[in-house]
Amino acid sequence: MSKLITIEETAQWLKERDNFLILTHRRPDGDTIGCAGALAQGLREQQKTAYILDNPEITPRYAGFVEEYTAPGGYEPEHIITIDTASPDLFPKNGGKYIKTISLCIDHHPSNTFYAEYTFLDGTTASCGENIYDLLIHMTGKISPRTAECLYVALSTDTGCFAFANTTANTLRIASLLIDAGAPHRTLNKNLFRTKTLGRLRIEGMIFSGIEFYFGGAVAVSTITLKMIETASADEDDLDDIASIPGSIEGVQAGITIRELTSVNDCKVSVRTGPQVNSHAICALFGGGGHPMAAGYSLDISVDETKAALLEALKNFFPEA
Amino acid sequence: MSKLITIEETAQWLKERDNFLILTHRRPDGDTIGCAGALAQGLREQQKTAYILDNPEITPRYAGFVEEYTAPGGYEPEHIITIDTASPDLFPKNGGKYIKTISLCIDHHPSNTFYAEYTFLDGTTASCGENIYDLLIHMTGKISPRTAECLYVALSTDTGCFAFANTTANTLRIASLLIDAGAPHRTLNKNLFRTKTLGRLRIEGMIFSGIEFYFGGAVAVSTITLKMIETASADEDDLDDIASIPGSIEGVQAGITIRELTSVNDCKVSVRTGPQVNSHAICALFGGGGHPMAAGYSLDISVDETKAALLEALKNFFPEA
Repeated sequence: MSKLITIEETAQWLKERDNFLILTHRRPDGDTIGCAGALAQGLREQQKTAYILDNPEITPRYAGFVEEYTAPGGYEPEHIITIDTASPDLFPKNGGKYIKTISLCIDHHPSNTFYAEYTFLDGTTASCGENIYDLLIHMTGKISPRTAECLYVALSTDTGCFAFANTTANTLRIASLLIDAGAPHRTLNKNLFRTKTLGRLRIEGMIFSGIEFYFGGAVAVSTITLKMIETASADEDDLDDIASIPGSIEGVQAGITIRELTSVNDCKVSVRTGPQVNSHAICALFGGGGHPMAAGYSLDISVDETKAALLEALKNFFPEA
Repeated sequence: MSKLITIEETAQWLKERDNFLILTHRRPDGDTIGCAGALAQGLREQQKTAYILDNPEITPRYAGFVEEYTAPGGYEPEHIITIDTASPDLFPKNGGKYIKTISLCIDHHPSNTFYAEYTFLDGTTASCGENIYDLLIHMTGKISPRTAECLYVALSTDTGCFAFANTTANTLRIASLLIDAGAPHRTLNKNLFRTKTLGRLRIEGMIFSGIEFYFGGAVAVSTITLKMIETASADEDDLDDIASIPGSIEGVQAGITIRELTSVNDCKVSVRTGPQVNSHAICALFGGGGHPMAAGYSLDISVDETKAALLEALKNFFPEA
């Protein structure tokens, strides 16, 4: 069983050790990558040896922030640390061999399964970057510009540039301190939030033009086919958070995204709802599940069949429309 | 000539007076509206009488925040205050009669023309809301939830939810304090930044699908016709900041938006550029102008004629492409 440790104990644990390898999670986002970069940099500034395990799924959007910390072949770490990784099934493929030997897990997910020897968990933060900020401040009292840059990536991407509901006063307070510490927020904001790739532009154009409304506008259905992705020359980065689009339309209570994954008979359905409708309950009808406001399922049938079955099921959730 | 006064003098000036009328600027945005609401509320909390002059151009997006402060017919103020209004030509139509009698101007535009008897100007802030925050804190040491809500509207809308280049560490610090003071940032963010109207969705779908690229992708041209606006059932709120779209595409150095205003032979051109190209220089060729990275002009010719003439002129700005 893992031992939950305080921020003081975590700082002390790190100070007494050396030769770290930091693991990020599957389908790495800005939070896990930014945190890993900040921790590696912060430990190096304390004359420690710290590397990050190369994540085979990292996308060009985030790769540049941590390139310099990638563990070289043959590196033999003494201590393995996971970041922002709630359970072992979120390990990247090449991290599987470390599952039984994680020394420390630093996380902000209340769902953490305590798989590491020691766990430092603060489940109140919007991003794990806030936890790493607190930890580094606790260890050295300061944040370097490079560390601030990585942490700003973590905070800003996990909160949609401070617009998502997880954003707190503390998130903004730390972001403010990171800018003071030298985070190049103007460049980061421009690149991460105010630049649209051509692939994203094209796929959004198709999605926006094709969204269908049902139940008096309470349900919006977006369809993303393999053909659309090919026409738009869109890659996975371009499809980031694409399932949030239909639910963000005024008046929509359930936003549905049906996406062809590997073939025309392999559909992934994402459901996003407001507080009136339970996403999990909808998806559970088709063998899926998730959270009350965000859930999903997959079926080996076509888009049209998926849509027809789902709309039929939704009659029970929108009886008045 | 206007007298520039400090924050202390401004606080004292307000404390010694009563019966205020607050003016917002033409085409009111979230900053002028949010500031006016916060100042009216803040003054009322100090047992003053304060109203806002109804702005005939206010849109539904912002109207609800200040309804309760609208000056009733027959209200006879002693002191007129303008907010976020750099010069008299930015007065709303019904504010013209006050031009010569403005007692106090509170602004953050370095271009302020000092038309008021007293001017409190801090040109370092991203939003005038930061100036009003400082002023109210200076006066009473605290911010009520209602005032915090109005100021959060001001800060967040003027910075694109903290993503625009004008955002500073201080903007985020004050936003953090506003949340602490009770600003309902989750609801505000959802309504202001994470909700797309159907009109906006449709017009964006058309714009995204129709953007044309020239000079090897360095120039993107977006066209918005009256027919498109009609088809999308889009209103002015839906077209807010629409000119920023082509310039936000990866690799684009000059984003051009050509919009039909009142007829097919009345085109408004907006140019947005990165640091490599001078928007003002481009627009000056057609009798317009503006800033180095954002400028515009209008001509009584068709979209096709406008585009042809502009692309011809751009050959001098993109000689290598």
